[in-house]
Amino acid sequence: MNRKSVRAIGIACVLFMLGWLTAATVSAADREKLLSDPGVYGTFAAFRIETDWGKLDQATRIANLTSFRGVVEQHREKLAIDTYLMRGLSDHADFMLRVHGAELKDTQQFLVDLQNSAFGRYLTSVVLLNGLTKKPNYVPGFSEQLKSDLKGPSESGPYVMVLPIRKDTEWWSLSQEKRAAMVQEHTEAALPYQKTVKRKLYHSTGLDDFDFITYFETAKPEEFHSLILALNKVKEARHNRRMGNPTLMGTVRSLDQLIEVLAQ
Amino acid sequence: MNRKSVRAIGIACVLFMLGWLTAATVSAADREKLLSDPGVYGTFAAFRIETDWGKLDQATRIANLTSFRGVVEQHREKLAIDTYLMRGLSDHADFMLRVHGAELKDTQQFLVDLQNSAFGRYLTSVVLLNGLTKKPNYVPGFSEQLKSDLKGPSESGPYVMVLPIRKDTEWWSLSQEKRAAMVQEHTEAALPYQKTVKRKLYHSTGLDDFDFITYFETAKPEEFHSLILALNKVKEARHNRRMGNPTLMGTVRSLDQLIEVLAQ
Amino acid sequence: MNRKSVRAIGIACVLFMLGWLTAATVSAADREKLLSDPGVYGTFAAFRIETDWGKLDQATRIANLTSFRGVVEQHREKLAIDTYLMRGLSDHADFMLRVHGAELKDTQQFLVDLQNSAFGRYLTSVVLLNGLTKKPNYVPGFSEQLKSDLKGPSESGPYVMVLPIRKDTEWWSLSQEKRAAMVQEHTEAALPYQKTVKRKLYHSTGLDDFDFITYFETAKPEEFHSLILALNKVKEARHNRRMGNPTLMGTVRSLDQLIEVLAQ
Amino acid sequence: MNRKSVRAIGIACVLFMLGWLTAATVSAADREKLLSDPGVYGTFAAFRIETDWGKLDQATRIANLTSFRGVVEQHREKLAIDTYLMRGLSDHADFMLRVHGAELKDTQQFLVDLQNSAFGRYLTSVVLLNGLTKKPNYVPGFSEQLKSDLKGPSESGPYVMVLPIRKDTEWWSLSQEKRAAMVQEHTEAALPYQKTVKRKLYHSTGLDDFDFITYFETAKPEEFHSLILALNKVKEARHNRRMGNPTLMGTVRSLDQLIEVLAQ
Amino acid sequence: MNRKSVRAIGIACVLFMLGWLTAATVSAADREKLLSDPGVYGTFAAFRIETDWGKLDQATRIANLTSFRGVVEQHREKLAIDTYLMRGLSDHADFMLRVHGAELKDTQQFLVDLQNSAFGRYLTSVVLLNGLTKKPNYVPGFSEQLKSDLKGPSESGPYVMVLPIRKDTEWWSLSQEKRAAMVQEHTEAALPYQKTVKRKLYHSTGLDDFDFITYFETAKPEEFHSLILALNKVKEARHNRRMGNPTLMGTVRSLDQLIEVLAQ
Repeated sequence: MNRKSVRAIGIACVLFMLGWLTAATVSAADREKLLSDPGVYGTFAAFRIETDWGKLDQATRIANLTSFRGVVEQHREKLAIDTYLMRGLSDHADFMLRVHGAELKDTQQFLVDLQNSAFGRYLTSVVLLNGLTKKPNYVPGFSEQLKSDLKGPSESGPYVMVLPIRKDTEWWSLSQEKRAAMVQEHTEAALPYQKTVKRKLYHSTGLDDFDFITYFETAKPEEFHSLILALNKVKEARHNRRMGNPTLMGTVRSLDQLIEVLAQ
Repeated sequence: MNRKSVRAIGIACVLFMLGWLTAATVSAADREKLLSDPGVYGTFAAFRIETDWGKLDQATRIANLTSFRGVVEQHREKLAIDTYLMRGLSDHADFMLRVHGAELKDTQQFLVDLQNSAFGRYLTSVVLLNGLTKKPNYVPGFSEQLKSDLKGPSESGPYVMVLPIRKDTEWWSLSQEKRAAMVQEHTEAALPYQKTVKRKLYHSTGLDDFDFITYFETAKPEEFHSLILALNKVKEARHNRRMGNPTLMGTVRSLDQLIEVLAQ
Repeated sequence: MNRKSVRAIGIACVLFMLGWLTAATVSAADREKLLSDPGVYGTFAAFRIETDWGKLDQATRIANLTSFRGVVEQHREKLAIDTYLMRGLSDHADFMLRVHGAELKDTQQFLVDLQNSAFGRYLTSVVLLNGLTKKPNYVPGFSEQLKSDLKGPSESGPYVMVLPIRKDTEWWSLSQEKRAAMVQEHTEAALPYQKTVKRKLYHSTGLDDFDFITYFETAKPEEFHSLILALNKVKEARHNRRMGNPTLMGTVRSLDQLIEVLAQ
Repeated sequence: MNRKSVRAIGIACVLFMLGWLTAATVSAADREKLLSDPGVYGTFAAFRIETDWGKLDQATRIANLTSFRGVVEQHREKLAIDTYLMRGLSDHADFMLRVHGAELKDTQQFLVDLQNSAFGRYLTSVVLLNGLTKKPNYVPGFSEQLKSDLKGPSESGPYVMVLPIRKDTEWWSLSQEKRAAMVQEHTEAALPYQKTVKRKLYHSTGLDDFDFITYFETAKPEEFHSLILALNKVKEARHNRRMGNPTLMGTVRSLDQLIEVLAQ
Repeated sequence: MNRKSVRAIGIACVLFMLGWLTAATVSAADREKLLSDPGVYGTFAAFRIETDWGKLDQATRIANLTSFRGVVEQHREKLAIDTYLMRGLSDHADFMLRVHGAELKDTQQFLVDLQNSAFGRYLTSVVLLNGLTKKPNYVPGFSEQLKSDLKGPSESGPYVMVLPIRKDTEWWSLSQEKRAAMVQEHTEAALPYQKTVKRKLYHSTGLDDFDFITYFETAKPEEFHSLILALNKVKEARHNRRMGNPTLMGTVRSLDQLIEVLAQ
């Protein structure tokens, strides 16, 4: 075992003694509902950590991270909060939070408390995307076979990719039928990746500078790459005025795992 | 009650003793006039707070915020000043001011005094949009039914969205009739959201890099999202060269509430 | 009189004792020539002041501003230098200088001396536009009536707007006649604002990233807004690849007035 | 020998005594496989070094660089890591790492460890591109002659150029046959530079904001320039929505050579 | 003589005593060859100086500038290095270096040594353009009259303008004949400015984000402005996807003159 690993274990011990490495207390049922219901707001907040942070001694860093954990725990009553490590896979941010809530003001209060915390003093908010989950617009018109195919389970993480999309003005002026036909073609092209790439869609027109936030998890980035290639080939893709920019890539990490990385 | 809440109440007490948490002294009648008359200038100034601010001790922060409050109070004789918390809902700014005045130089003096204040030393002006309220250009030609429908009341806040718009060059070269027809279609598409989304329009051609500043308040961001979707579908939307970018989203907060957040 | 005003008067007294609040010594005749002759170079230099500046004590700020005044005075033998306060009306800059000279190297020397001064240590040059005044290209072909109309006087300040313009490549490939016709239409559209909005044109192709710098002064921003709207509607506007971006808005201030604001 | 050279040799001695200037211990066979197999992930991470770094004394810089070397060595079991000096040939970054691995999470762990190291405190991640090597899509359809020509060896370094490419939406909607014909034309145009310019292609759709990362090494930048000119002339180039932006240019340096430059 | 001039002369004396104000030792013949031969690499490196620099005392600044001079002198054996003051005429940079060399790695070594020097700690590399001089592509096909006209001498400096150009994809797909015809039209349009504006062309496709770097010197910016206007009107200009952005304008200064400005 090398010196690096020994140090990492030492940090984990300290965090454990501080009572951090416990199971999360949030109700699994409520969380599941927030993650699957329509009409839920989803906010993606990506942060950069100031270079000053790295120059603090470790005890101070751990003390500050206690405030991070505290703020997250406090807001888990109302919100489903997921944490991601972006550093090393994205040049846009160091970490990202995905927050689901019934009310955007609860999400705002959480993020304000985070930035007001001791840890928050070292953060810059670099990307903030607000979206909304909705009942599928076009699925009701799909064939029974396609509807049934869409119900299969998807494998999750550890890789996460978030690509916001802005449609062109022509897209919105098309008839519902034409858009439905294109979305069906899109859905069929994505079907072969149903099992290996988990997807979730957020509508964000008016809530930020995009129309959609597309969220993906996979164990195989190569599969995700093939999925996006397949989606680029359908007619609906011609109406993407902007896709990605930023493309946010990272890995799913529990709060404890994320804090461990930041403490080092 | 958790420790966090106890601390927040403590701060509120200090602010109260400093005489802050009093009612605003500005004449309600004048404010109403500034907010409803044509020929009034509206300026949207969004600020970022330096990360150094968060590293000050709380007493210093509260002392500095006294200067913020003082500057706002001093200029409320001539100006209607509204305050918004953007942090947590927008990656562009921490807070925003909306200033209505009969003269832009009064607005400038207010913002100069703010930046020269003790609090202002920690602010960066990130977005500044100048607009003008005008009598409706196209409404006189609308049907009596539509004119009457437009008179219904709208619910307000707590959510605020500001989207600046730049039209393409073709828009301006269209005849008044063609533009009137498109604006009527736009207005009819917006009508179902008349009650749940409050709107206000500012003309800004020449006064900043946009042609319009559109301001919205709602209690239901989902309704606002649907409104913008509906507006994207009408022909007039094809003449938007830029819409949003930045999209500014936040919540309406009184000056006292905003200061409380910044003091923590 | 409130405390704020008392402080402002105190500062004015200090500045007066330092010999600052005297009349400018530059020859009015030479200045008039620089401001009206063709073949004169006009440079617009907009600056941001570092946030550190605001954290200096007032005595140091006043001492540093002495150097600012000194540099301006020294170069007023050869250059016509105008000063503008942008803060509070523009998010691009805190103040702006307009410099007219027969030789660009004199302007460069002035701006180098400014940045090398004690005050200059706190400045960042954010926008620098170089232009040239020329004899009107198209006016000789205008009707006598239009030529005569153009000779009326214009009211000046306090508001200033600077909009750089880049034409598209098609514009330059049009015949002189076609361009002349479009410029005449442009001129006629602007005529109703001749009295209330003062205009000055600089040619900047090759000297910066634009083709023209358009400079405006008015007492009524609403009139200026209407002028730009009118100009947007003529055919020549379709050849603007970029107009504004940045739009620089501020107010005309004497050097003394500008220094007073910066000293506070 | 001048003073500069003497100092450089002195530094080399210190580094040698610290055990740095030894041969790399990674298995050459594994490295070769990572660099030639399909299905391998390639990440390009370009960094800027804070100006504070240059203000540290040399002993501290050398101590910090020990951590850099340690992190690289530790991860060379699983990853093939190449190092490049960009400073002086690119305004985007000071140095660049190219990392090949079977799993992107190993690459992330390496880059996280690097940023968490003593040296990492002075780094900003400015460009991060993720790609994937794949079996050639179109080569199977090429003529035997062309396939055989493509097998010739290429000279390598010291110059490196990395140009990411984003295709337009039309490209992806073309039939496989049409794309194959265009890629063949592209390949034939590149053939005369087969010997003097080494090329490697990464597919990155969905993994960052580009579709391809093209990597080049040459001893003759003039030859590379001619190659890109030749590629600009074929039909496939018309489907490049973005090519370069950023163009990353530098020189191949061993880890020891890179550390020597950074230590000075 | 004013105080400012006295101080400047004082600084010049100190610099003279430090042995700085001597003639350059580089062989004039080699320099001439580098500046006129085809197959030579030309790099334009523009730098911003940190605002901290201005806050150093003058003795420290002069000591640091000694390192700047040393690095330049050391590399003048292999490289032709020209120095320009951009401050006051460009908002992109404070000064610029033009470096001609037979090998880009010599240029890189020079710029690395510069950034590693005591002075280099205060520099940020803001623009770096790499180009190559080539034998004229199209001149051989010109008429004898045009070829002869092109041989006239050009006046030089003190003004310098550098405009990078990116052609559109259509340009590269045109036949050699069509491009030759357009370049001839371009050349004829430029001919009237042959005497007053000195021009030099660098090819940079693949070596940076542009296709050409155009370099100009003149004593009369007005003439240069007229030249660019004339060039905008020919058909070849329609294939400029980007021209300028950045437009770099400054004045030719010897190393001694540049150091004198920076020492103040």
